[in-house]
Amino acid sequence: MQELIARFRKILKTRGEWKNTDNDSATFRLGNTDLVFTTDSFVISPIFFPGGNIGDLAVIGTINDLAVMGAEPIGISLSLIIEEGFETERLEKIMEAVERVSAETGVPVATGDTKVMEKGKIDGIVINTSGIGKADRILEEKIVPGDKVIVSGSIADHGVALLSKRFDFETGLISDSKPVLEEMRNVRDSIRQAKDPTRGGLAACLNEFAARGNVGMEIDEEKVPVKKEVAKFTEILGLDPYEIGCEGRVVAVVPAEKADSVLKELKGFNPEAEIIGEVVEGKEVVLKTKIGKRVLHNPKGKLIPRIC
Amino acid sequence: MQELIARFRKILKTRGEWKNTDNDSATFRLGNTDLVFTTDSFVISPIFFPGGNIGDLAVIGTINDLAVMGAEPIGISLSLIIEEGFETERLEKIMEAVERVSAETGVPVATGDTKVMEKGKIDGIVINTSGIGKADRILEEKIVPGDKVIVSGSIADHGVALLSKRFDFETGLISDSKPVLEEMRNVRDSIRQAKDPTRGGLAACLNEFAARGNVGMEIDEEKVPVKKEVAKFTEILGLDPYEIGCEGRVVAVVPAEKADSVLKELKGFNPEAEIIGEVVEGKEVVLKTKIGKRVLHNPKGKLIPRIC
Repeated sequence: MQELIARFRKILKTRGEWKNTDNDSATFRLGNTDLVFTTDSFVISPIFFPGGNIGDLAVIGTINDLAVMGAEPIGISLSLIIEEGFETERLEKIMEAVERVSAETGVPVATGDTKVMEKGKIDGIVINTSGIGKADRILEEKIVPGDKVIVSGSIADHGVALLSKRFDFETGLISDSKPVLEEMRNVRDSIRQAKDPTRGGLAACLNEFAARGNVGMEIDEEKVPVKKEVAKFTEILGLDPYEIGCEGRVVAVVPAEKADSVLKELKGFNPEAEIIGEVVEGKEVVLKTKIGKRVLHNPKGKLIPRIC
Repeated sequence: MQELIARFRKILKTRGEWKNTDNDSATFRLGNTDLVFTTDSFVISPIFFPGGNIGDLAVIGTINDLAVMGAEPIGISLSLIIEEGFETERLEKIMEAVERVSAETGVPVATGDTKVMEKGKIDGIVINTSGIGKADRILEEKIVPGDKVIVSGSIADHGVALLSKRFDFETGLISDSKPVLEEMRNVRDSIRQAKDPTRGGLAACLNEFAARGNVGMEIDEEKVPVKKEVAKFTEILGLDPYEIGCEGRVVAVVPAEKADSVLKELKGFNPEAEIIGEVVEGKEVVLKTKIGKRVLHNPKGKLIPRIC
């Protein structure tokens, strides 16, 4: 997949004045503000999961992609691709979930599209949301050795909640899926960069920070918040919680002197928030465990499909 | 479908400061410019058709949705949903088609997303493109009786080219799919409103103008440019060319005194451009034929699927 995307990026050479085109959201200077633009398609299975459905997930995912760039979302688009015969009642539940997040956050669905494909040509429903935001300060500051890495809550809850439903496995866990806009508003002035660890989980997220910043990271396994149910479920299935996505968490890289105040702010939203490690010289993301160290690789070709 | 969309619009109440949320593109005042935002998913079959493929079609469709609002496109997003096993070579051809339009028009793909679904869970590939533009003057002027209706070229070429390929029917026709940005740049200062007649063709487009403007229209059948191959093909299959989409045409509503100069400009791009009728008092779109008059209804529940 990463190879495929790299190949696409070679073909798509026209970039104009856009910046951050390899990031969660691209940015464009317009007048005296920065526009922020992002897109995501949601192809989840099952469509309804503990803690949400594809509708709220799609809106939340796009709001979060804008928020972690330091932006205030202006509006989102909502494009539905529906299998013929999909129950109207379920569709309405999905739209109500969209509206709930939209009303809560004040981020309108500005424009939309609906397409229907014949029965059997698409699996139920796929939703694309794109979003526009504006930012006074894009979070693209260089990260440097000594910076602290903070996660805003426990990891992998979303992926595990969805998988447990898919496998009909009772965990009691619900998805962490939620807008991180309020958290970001409270801490964005104090941080260098942020990401939401969705596809590929914390492992992909940290490796992206490291690669883009040309630095290494040292993460303290004991500090990484993992819920008991998540640890149990992933152990049974032989999965790595570090590679499983969240949909309501932020990973922030913060100058050392501001780490405590940012952590305090984030703990106000979720007491699980933790400083999990720091930026170091080097190129690798290293996980310090009780018995030693291991490299936390960027997950490759083995991602669990369709959890986001 | 229209009923479904109406139901969605009732649920999605949060609109914020967005305007034109029921139009091809929504608009938002930001500083001293208007942002324009649109989204479209492309679910065509076949994916490669005479005159293009899903890649250029998607980019063109979104650029055109912005252009008919009077906007200069700033950038688009490109979201691919791909069936596992879809040939890489075809994917590259699609991406090259995207880049060709992007380079020609100078409209960058600013941000993207790629998702893969298991074999059999999606039919080949679906593409969503969203776009942002900015406009000095949004084309939302009230249309009034006496205004002229101009079409920039022959209708239904895209739909028929695609259908003929689907049915393995040799027509020699190629899709009209192309960006209408240059045409719009040349005429946008002189027109009240414009639309690109895609889904539902000219019939849907004219009815939308009429409904939104609370006016009627009188269209002269003899003036509407329809290619011979299109007339023949639609007659054989019992289809109505007025209901079949184009992907490179504009329908403009123009004050009477400016109609000749706008027509002249448009003929510079395509000699088929014509003044096809005018805005009248009333509520219906009436087609004057050789033998009398008939109401040109908004196509309902019988649209040919998956041509855009």
